[in-house]
Amino acid sequence: MTTFEYKNNILHVENISLKDLACVHGTPLYVYSLSHILDRFNSFTNAFKPMSKSVQVGVHFAMKSNSNQAIVTILAKAGCGMDIVSGGELRRAVSAGVHPDKIIYSGVAKSVLEIRDVIDAGILQINVESVEEIQQINKIALDMGKVASVALRVNPNIDAKTHTKISTGQKTDKFGIDIELASDLYKQMLTMDGLNPCGIAVHLGSQLMSPEPFIDAYKLVAELAKDLMASGVPLKRLDLGGGLGIAYESSDTPPDVNAYCKMVMDTVGDTQLDVHFEPGRWLVGNSGTLIGCVENVKQNDVKTFILGDVGMNDLIRPTLYEAHHDILPVKESEETIVADLVGPVCESGDYMCKNRTLPKMRRGDFFAIMSAGAYGMVQASNYNSRGMPAEVLVQDNNAYLIRPRQTIEDLIDMDIVPEDLDW
Amino acid sequence: MTTFEYKNNILHVENISLKDLACVHGTPLYVYSLSHILDRFNSFTNAFKPMSKSVQVGVHFAMKSNSNQAIVTILAKAGCGMDIVSGGELRRAVSAGVHPDKIIYSGVAKSVLEIRDVIDAGILQINVESVEEIQQINKIALDMGKVASVALRVNPNIDAKTHTKISTGQKTDKFGIDIELASDLYKQMLTMDGLNPCGIAVHLGSQLMSPEPFIDAYKLVAELAKDLMASGVPLKRLDLGGGLGIAYESSDTPPDVNAYCKMVMDTVGDTQLDVHFEPGRWLVGNSGTLIGCVENVKQNDVKTFILGDVGMNDLIRPTLYEAHHDILPVKESEETIVADLVGPVCESGDYMCKNRTLPKMRRGDFFAIMSAGAYGMVQASNYNSRGMPAEVLVQDNNAYLIRPRQTIEDLIDMDIVPEDLDW
Repeated sequence: MTTFEYKNNILHVENISLKDLACVHGTPLYVYSLSHILDRFNSFTNAFKPMSKSVQVGVHFAMKSNSNQAIVTILAKAGCGMDIVSGGELRRAVSAGVHPDKIIYSGVAKSVLEIRDVIDAGILQINVESVEEIQQINKIALDMGKVASVALRVNPNIDAKTHTKISTGQKTDKFGIDIELASDLYKQMLTMDGLNPCGIAVHLGSQLMSPEPFIDAYKLVAELAKDLMASGVPLKRLDLGGGLGIAYESSDTPPDVNAYCKMVMDTVGDTQLDVHFEPGRWLVGNSGTLIGCVENVKQNDVKTFILGDVGMNDLIRPTLYEAHHDILPVKESEETIVADLVGPVCESGDYMCKNRTLPKMRRGDFFAIMSAGAYGMVQASNYNSRGMPAEVLVQDNNAYLIRPRQTIEDLIDMDIVPEDLDW
Repeated sequence: MTTFEYKNNILHVENISLKDLACVHGTPLYVYSLSHILDRFNSFTNAFKPMSKSVQVGVHFAMKSNSNQAIVTILAKAGCGMDIVSGGELRRAVSAGVHPDKIIYSGVAKSVLEIRDVIDAGILQINVESVEEIQQINKIALDMGKVASVALRVNPNIDAKTHTKISTGQKTDKFGIDIELASDLYKQMLTMDGLNPCGIAVHLGSQLMSPEPFIDAYKLVAELAKDLMASGVPLKRLDLGGGLGIAYESSDTPPDVNAYCKMVMDTVGDTQLDVHFEPGRWLVGNSGTLIGCVENVKQNDVKTFILGDVGMNDLIRPTLYEAHHDILPVKESEETIVADLVGPVCESGDYMCKNRTLPKMRRGDFFAIMSAGAYGMVQASNYNSRGMPAEVLVQDNNAYLIRPRQTIEDLIDMDIVPEDLDW
């Protein structure tokens, strides 16, 4: 099944019309295809079937990309593990029924409470980010009378050639520990009774479009792993992170997952260690769209602006990362116009695209901002006192509301007006 | 009273220790000084006292800068009007007891529902953004049997020399109507029975640090006003917008409000029209701080990272606008270190400052991110499944919790996991 296609001139997700969803639930509205998400998960696990004959292959959904409880629960039931980055994500994962031994914690500035919570839950592995954290986690584990399974997140100092805000594998990034220091640190960890140094973790960033940075990093990790095992470090697994890019526009050529698997086998296969992956965007990015409605079209002598009801509070990726999202008309249209699609928020940074050839749209027309399944709703805010959008999950010809639209009453109720102030 | 100062080595807001607030309410924590906000409001109205002898002067708080219901309510009780940009802000203003004739609506992509709501509420003025909107508002007003008081928001095509994401007064920005077209449009509006064209509005952007763009724009507006009045347009007021900058660091020299008032009188005084202003950041920006706690400090051979518990989900200004916020230690300290202060969110864009000389801090130390009263909490998100921070309002030696910290249960409860999915 094609996830998004026009049927009788109306854009559908699976067998549901986006126009119908917009009319029933209002806009802005996030819509996700369940079949797409499960297909992607199956593609990923299938790609690694050859490898999984000799070692265990773990797939851990990077929940930060889309943490709606329905999506986390569905992926968990499909057998997917979770990559968490906060105590909040631990609670979501546990609440979704994810077994602790399928959870990897990759937080960058872990609080004491978060460290206690993940040790207490008995998760598979904590990815450690610094020398200071090694000592801290050891102490907390000892205090709790437990042993924490840890991996050093090594920083290979490799430029992932992605957007600077989502690059993570360079020395000037805040993530991980210099790979040159790792060998000594593993030997130190062997002497710490609160730690079981069972893995090595690496993650280069998000939305990588070429295999070279992966190859360079994985080779370094494999070499390190072999050295460590020769020194008696009881390694069990490599956490090779996420970061596989997806196509945001038709000209994008992201790495193929089967080629990626072959590259993984070529680079780290001879370590005979289990391999774990943390795809987020790759699983859900193209499952989702954000439907909006045109409020007005305005023109001056230099530009045309299509004014939509989708703001940077609903989707911040265009302004935060200069990200491209395809814009499709919900009702198929041949006519085009060069315009900015902007939102209702009072900032010039509030736009979905600039100077783009867009379908010609009029007031009341619906449009679909594509590839909005990852890093969309999770970054929504209430800026300009706008309630967060609703979310709908579609499977075949069924649509499920998985998050109602936030109302202004919901927002006002979050605040407390003191009664006894002296003004 | 100084808003923030060290007493016995501990940073205080008014007479309350930030350390005590952090211990009681946890971090990240937004803290605002009520006295500062009221002082600023009084400074603004006092500056315009000379002018208010001959014409009415309206001050309308730009609620988008900080829409906590307590702050809106307090400003409303102090006599401040509101500048709203959405239906949500209308509801907040009305709920805070603001009289409709103190409300100006400046939305850039107004929905039909929002237009109906503000006409129904009988607000002072709707700022109109396009030719298309003129016709739309006229039609809606006629359908309702009402007359809408409107001002054209004219776009003077002036570079405000502020950050591109918050500049609003150029032709390539989505805001307003070319000032050259205004004269014809007012004459058209005179023939529309649903509209009362009683004002002219202009707004150049936010955080302007020099008076020149204001002077240029206000002169153009005054000239236009005189022409229009000579042609029989029943103008009553000029809405001169907001945008007055504040000091984010000690070397900043924002325009003085008294000089600003004098400039307003010099440029538009001879029109004898009422004047209205929309300060947001100017009223609340320096009233607030965001307290965080150090989770860890890590060093590699090229950098030191102070890992705090304040993320881009709590305060996005540093990464979104490359904004500077002073960072002060809550416990006074002489020692310094050059470091990045970064947050717990898994993105390299998650930082509060980079390569800055900071107080030397250790795990558990509290720090204060200054000037966080505007465009801080209003842009908070739940990214990485992090609950939004709590907010506290301080007056003298009283502290009031004006928004409790969001819990992970609050977040999970927003979602619905369908029971009958076929997976």
